[in-house]
Amino acid sequence: MTNLNSTHDPQLRSWVASANAAGCDFPIQNLPFGTFVPNEGGGPRIGVAIGDQILDLRAAGLIATHDMNVLMAAGPAERSALRAAISQGLAEGSSERADWEKSALVPQSAVTMQLPCRIGDYTDFYTSVHHATTVGKQFRPDNPLLPNYKWIPIGYHGRASSVGVSGQRFKRPKGQIKPSPDAPPVLAPTRKLDYELELGFFIAGGNALGEPIGIERAEEHLFGVTLFNDWSARDIQPWEYQPLGPFLSKNFASTVSPWIVTTEALAPFRAKFERAADDVQPLPYLESPANRESGALGITLEVWLQTAKMREAGQPPVMLSHGNAAEAAYWTVAQLITHHTVNGCNLQPGDLLGSGTLSGPKPEEAGSLLELTTGGKNPIQLPNGESRGFLEDGDTLVMRGYCERAGAVRIGLGEVSATVLPAA
Amino acid sequence: MTNLNSTHDPQLRSWVASANAAGCDFPIQNLPFGTFVPNEGGGPRIGVAIGDQILDLRAAGLIATHDMNVLMAAGPAERSALRAAISQGLAEGSSERADWEKSALVPQSAVTMQLPCRIGDYTDFYTSVHHATTVGKQFRPDNPLLPNYKWIPIGYHGRASSVGVSGQRFKRPKGQIKPSPDAPPVLAPTRKLDYELELGFFIAGGNALGEPIGIERAEEHLFGVTLFNDWSARDIQPWEYQPLGPFLSKNFASTVSPWIVTTEALAPFRAKFERAADDVQPLPYLESPANRESGALGITLEVWLQTAKMREAGQPPVMLSHGNAAEAAYWTVAQLITHHTVNGCNLQPGDLLGSGTLSGPKPEEAGSLLELTTGGKNPIQLPNGESRGFLEDGDTLVMRGYCERAGAVRIGLGEVSATVLPAA
Repeated sequence: MTNLNSTHDPQLRSWVASANAAGCDFPIQNLPFGTFVPNEGGGPRIGVAIGDQILDLRAAGLIATHDMNVLMAAGPAERSALRAAISQGLAEGSSERADWEKSALVPQSAVTMQLPCRIGDYTDFYTSVHHATTVGKQFRPDNPLLPNYKWIPIGYHGRASSVGVSGQRFKRPKGQIKPSPDAPPVLAPTRKLDYELELGFFIAGGNALGEPIGIERAEEHLFGVTLFNDWSARDIQPWEYQPLGPFLSKNFASTVSPWIVTTEALAPFRAKFERAADDVQPLPYLESPANRESGALGITLEVWLQTAKMREAGQPPVMLSHGNAAEAAYWTVAQLITHHTVNGCNLQPGDLLGSGTLSGPKPEEAGSLLELTTGGKNPIQLPNGESRGFLEDGDTLVMRGYCERAGAVRIGLGEVSATVLPAA
Repeated sequence: MTNLNSTHDPQLRSWVASANAAGCDFPIQNLPFGTFVPNEGGGPRIGVAIGDQILDLRAAGLIATHDMNVLMAAGPAERSALRAAISQGLAEGSSERADWEKSALVPQSAVTMQLPCRIGDYTDFYTSVHHATTVGKQFRPDNPLLPNYKWIPIGYHGRASSVGVSGQRFKRPKGQIKPSPDAPPVLAPTRKLDYELELGFFIAGGNALGEPIGIERAEEHLFGVTLFNDWSARDIQPWEYQPLGPFLSKNFASTVSPWIVTTEALAPFRAKFERAADDVQPLPYLESPANRESGALGITLEVWLQTAKMREAGQPPVMLSHGNAAEAAYWTVAQLITHHTVNGCNLQPGDLLGSGTLSGPKPEEAGSLLELTTGGKNPIQLPNGESRGFLEDGDTLVMRGYCERAGAVRIGLGEVSATVLPAA
């Protein structure tokens, strides 16, 4: 555990009553950042979620900008001071209450959330060894895990322009697909549309080109964490991805949750991160005492599906899987940041790193349909009689995440939801 | 040939005398766009190169913005009208001369060029079948060209943040390298630093997410062309790139030339683009009459090297290779744009597409040292007695490009130059 301070005090309660309700994602111990536009009009504004409300940070007199990337560029001490000021002002008995209630508090139901920031570059990683092994088995039964996996946090560049915020609706993508190994490819809508359950890591202050970020200071460069659905077309990928990696099978859409939960809010939910003694040990640049002591993120993750038929019948989403990020990830976010910059590559405020699909060790903890249905061969039976090998048009996929442990107040990451539209 | 109009008239001369000199890269028939900062101070401005001068477009009263991305978003008709107005104003006998000479003309020697625009996303392709085959032979002697190559314009996402403008100096990157197949990896500076000779394609107006760009209209979305050096660390790549593609072996630096030569300026230098009748033919979405008629870009490309010793001795760079983009590329830029968006992926003004290494059919036309020296095994002997298998610290690598044909005025792409600094 690091940096625990009064903003995590379990006794702390807010004068925003909804924040004190049991099970609320956004108690005063959380205070995640997002960008919203009031439905009544006006430009984007930076807010912090508190209960079912949003504190407009500039209206509250706490910051001078409406630009999240500017806020992200602040150093860790400045960000920490801001968190403390928000926490104090929202706490029961605060002298700010009268002012803020009048001029800075907005109901979440009265706004539209936007992407939290401008994403300069988006990089996706592959941190779940369970995902890598299960998927590898489908492609290479004899050699599921490639030899580099335990040495290198495998990552690749993704597409920033097609990252959207929760609520995104996108058309089923078309691409070149091989109907059979010997047939020529055809251009067709994907028949193997899948989700990928990930965490999104937003970068705070970056590094200059040529200046690597050592692992001891890597988390200072992390602004916070979101839920992230990195959509995939499983029948486009195998034909296109050699030798330079996935491309059109991934870049048609990715969806991020609107609220960035800061590293400070997550501090009580960190856990030890140690490899087995007989496992490959990371190279020294990817090791630190703090990383071993608290590198893991204890975030429970859930995937829910609501088909069009379920929606029409008024039936709520059903859960497809759940697991915990701490058990899924073979690499920590500090290791991702340090590896990403070890060659001098420059990160910038607002850059997004994806964790990769966070499948846990048990089959039912898998973070994609590719794994849950074994590539569509074993479809999931839904309670209303429908089944799914992969996603159908009209399906809405919802991911939720939260942290809880004894002695700390539960916090949530909210949700990321998106809907598949028919192909053009 | 398409869209030839009076701005290409070979008789046209400029009142900027240096633009009329034989062999000048920037005659009045060229008019490439760039972003410059006056050395005497002030913010970035959009200019057009003319001879050894720059026309400041806003000072000349031609545009209202200093932001290239805004200019790029204009439609093809608006861009064409701007080109015509610049051409008329810079032509001998123009009534604009007195005004522009006084207040809008800046010597190139009095400015610093910047990146021409904000690059939202950068995608690198792999369009030279000769490069793909030669490199493939080094990795897979029996199967050099993968089965998808002739069907799909292979591409992957690169890193936008580390793209710099000509003059870039970057530190030799470190990364995980395997000293031998059986040894564990070590963190070390690359010993196989290489350049890649590419063209950079800048996107003009983009497309909305979910709305593919058909090949008939693809070039309307192309703003213009630059030289592009996509640096590579050849010993980092083989260990890291499976299964998701190159990452740290590429994203430490990429260097672009400052002047974007527009598709209109290139119109006289287009050439037929046809595959052999017995070759694989592209799928219909990647075919059009115009693409076959004039899809190829007749751009001569040269690579030059000046080592630190040569620089100290006052010796000029020596040429390592030269070739022509039209003979190197197996896919056209229209095909790249259409394929990139066929799944609905949204391009945006200022996005950069790299052609991939443009190696020609002859060994001496190779666009990288990996090919020219067979992976370092056959070093190049330089006139001063030095040799190079890969690049050394202090090396300056220069790429130049130009177009010429009978009946048209030669135009140049200028140059892209960058220098390798020692590892941190």
